[in-house]
Amino acid sequence: MSAIEALVREFSRLPGIGRKTAQRLTYFLLKGSPEDGLRLAEAVSRVMAEVVPCTECGNLSTEDPCELCRNPRREVGSICVVEEASDIPAIEGSGQFRGRYHVLGGHLSPLDGIGPDELNIASLMRRLQDGVGELIIATNPSVEGEATAAYLFRLVAEHDGLRVTRLARGLPVGGDLEYADGVTIAEAFSGRREM
Amino acid sequence: MSAIEALVREFSRLPGIGRKTAQRLTYFLLKGSPEDGLRLAEAVSRVMAEVVPCTECGNLSTEDPCELCRNPRREVGSICVVEEASDIPAIEGSGQFRGRYHVLGGHLSPLDGIGPDELNIASLMRRLQDGVGELIIATNPSVEGEATAAYLFRLVAEHDGLRVTRLARGLPVGGDLEYADGVTIAEAFSGRREM
Repeated sequence: MSAIEALVREFSRLPGIGRKTAQRLTYFLLKGSPEDGLRLAEAVSRVMAEVVPCTECGNLSTEDPCELCRNPRREVGSICVVEEASDIPAIEGSGQFRGRYHVLGGHLSPLDGIGPDELNIASLMRRLQDGVGELIIATNPSVEGEATAAYLFRLVAEHDGLRVTRLARGLPVGGDLEYADGVTIAEAFSGRREM
Repeated sequence: MSAIEALVREFSRLPGIGRKTAQRLTYFLLKGSPEDGLRLAEAVSRVMAEVVPCTECGNLSTEDPCELCRNPRREVGSICVVEEASDIPAIEGSGQFRGRYHVLGGHLSPLDGIGPDELNIASLMRRLQDGVGELIIATNPSVEGEATAAYLFRLVAEHDGLRVTRLARGLPVGGDLEYADGVTIAEAFSGRREM
């Protein structure tokens, strides 16, 4: 297989990238400077070699424990549960959360053989022993995410003094009411707030 | 800069890939096996190190002259002129052309300072001396591509016995007449054929 074809195939394996796009990316690199291409190759190698899951929270980072778990200014009393490590930058970008995270590594999906034992739930239960006051469940607003949230809620319901919350559902900011789906509008109604 | 952030930035430099997509690709690699990621890194390095433009036709390949120029079963009497090396796989995919290629390296664009001297036109003129019977101009169906085709046509008009053609314009197969633009429909009318 030629070098060009090999790279087209590797790019095609990435999500959302078909063969045509993979060809475009390959020829884009070939038209650019060799340094740009080699910087990409090195960034990929580095990520694969250096990034590890945090043994505390499951976040992906070059350090273990990760920056967030080591940061003394993050509140230890508040844990935000997410499905994937990739959800963390999105929440950090909002600037609204100053606690720590816990990555489940997915959501419950019995049809795919993913039950509670396949997710990082046991380690979450252990962390809850250490004076955690609030558990914010930030699983995805999907059927599986909701089911996972409901399961977690039942599991931690017996913890005394633990406040369990989940992110609000409603209209996305900048969205258009006209194009919102019925379920989202229903959630926005039931969660309406005094102005 | 962290390894993750470094890779997100490198992915973001690729065409059509914004920051969100770059993050998705990065975390996709991190969720996969290390071998998959390293294979991508190696494929990028290999392409940058091994691929060179063919001194004969300008095609990008790991060999010089390229496979197409070295292949004795390709007709030497027919040259297809394309703007970019990335156009060649598309034409090869159609299976309709058995001759050789010539890559211009772009199109005429006076506003960007790209005149005839910036394109591989002199080498094309040299190749035409060697018993070429047909020149197929396959520049893009854009304003710049058409201008480049017209320029080439005037340049080679004096060559005796050289047939100069260009690819047909018309409705794309599988397309919908309703959504075709007026210029394409006009071309389809003027190029209509007996059934």
